[in-house]
Amino acid sequence: MASVFDKKGGGEFQSPALEDLVANLSRLPGLGRKSATRIALHLVAKTDKSEELGTALETASAQVKNCSNCGAITEDDPCRICTSDRREAGLLCIVASPVDILPFEKAGFFQGRYFVLGGLLSPLDGVRADDLPFGRLEARLSSDGITEVIIALDASVEGETTALYIQRLLEGRDLQMSRLATGIPVGGSLAYTDEVTLQRAFQFRRSF
Amino acid sequence: MASVFDKKGGGEFQSPALEDLVANLSRLPGLGRKSATRIALHLVAKTDKSEELGTALETASAQVKNCSNCGAITEDDPCRICTSDRREAGLLCIVASPVDILPFEKAGFFQGRYFVLGGLLSPLDGVRADDLPFGRLEARLSSDGITEVIIALDASVEGETTALYIQRLLEGRDLQMSRLATGIPVGGSLAYTDEVTLQRAFQFRRSF
Repeated sequence: MASVFDKKGGGEFQSPALEDLVANLSRLPGLGRKSATRIALHLVAKTDKSEELGTALETASAQVKNCSNCGAITEDDPCRICTSDRREAGLLCIVASPVDILPFEKAGFFQGRYFVLGGLLSPLDGVRADDLPFGRLEARLSSDGITEVIIALDASVEGETTALYIQRLLEGRDLQMSRLATGIPVGGSLAYTDEVTLQRAFQFRRSF
Repeated sequence: MASVFDKKGGGEFQSPALEDLVANLSRLPGLGRKSATRIALHLVAKTDKSEELGTALETASAQVKNCSNCGAITEDDPCRICTSDRREAGLLCIVASPVDILPFEKAGFFQGRYFVLGGLLSPLDGVRADDLPFGRLEARLSSDGITEVIIALDASVEGETTALYIQRLLEGRDLQMSRLATGIPVGGSLAYTDEVTLQRAFQFRRSF
């Protein structure tokens, strides 16, 4: 090995600044060192793209926040869903993450408002009831006059656990409570459905 | 459809700033809208990461340039390869892109210097001889007293075309000229070698 590159830096480029950009990009979710290198080279070659991205990054960091009422991603606080008078005030959908609001809003059929938990109960990962905003949820149910709650959590062990916890927490209140159906997805093929899903679809079968 | 989101904006978020960041990230090589969204959400959630990336981006854009002599990616111009006195002055390796220098420098066996073409001849893509720095190449051969040229271009149609063009351009000069061997890669399996590579490996077979 007789490269001119400084081996202590560990980098493959003759540029610490480029190495640093690659390192920063590699830390982003879903990017490995190869894709990060490709993107970094693209960015340093196109200064205008790089500037645009820098500006977008700065603006987004400054502008984007979570709605203090529901937890949705928003620039206005409270968000437009919480302030819209076309939303049914008594209807609340509980989701785990702000991203989970997106498919509902894309589909457009749901006319209530949201409550973002920001996580799911997970004893294994050390997420306990104290770590999730159940107090705030209960306060909101009372103050906003909620009459119906829909629990829309992942169909995972953590999602089920959290849904059951919420059900027990809220039972005794004068509330209609439901959760999303588990079953074969629309367009899904029976032959390729996993056993657990099939069992659930069977267990929760509907009469005509 | 009765979403509160502005349909004209086309975005799925309640935030134009976040939409803009996603759009900017989607334009990067190898990133689709889904990965861009994932990265954008990560960045707005972690303001410190976002700032670090912004700074790295700015520094790299300002610092990284191409060596005016060889075209390598560098912060110093001319680059450390061009200025190193441990490099063989008479030996020049012609590559298509600055990135092609990296595997040579990683391996460390090559002790000459480089010349980056910045592209390959490609009539289909409209890249003609006038678009590549052949004039600068000829000037450098004369001024730097180059005695040996190694053409290290992709084993593609464009690479072959460009290699042939360079060979014709330089013939008549007092130069040793060669190009990288084409054949079965080390560790490659004969059974899975494509026909063209196999034919080349056969055609250029070595005697013991």
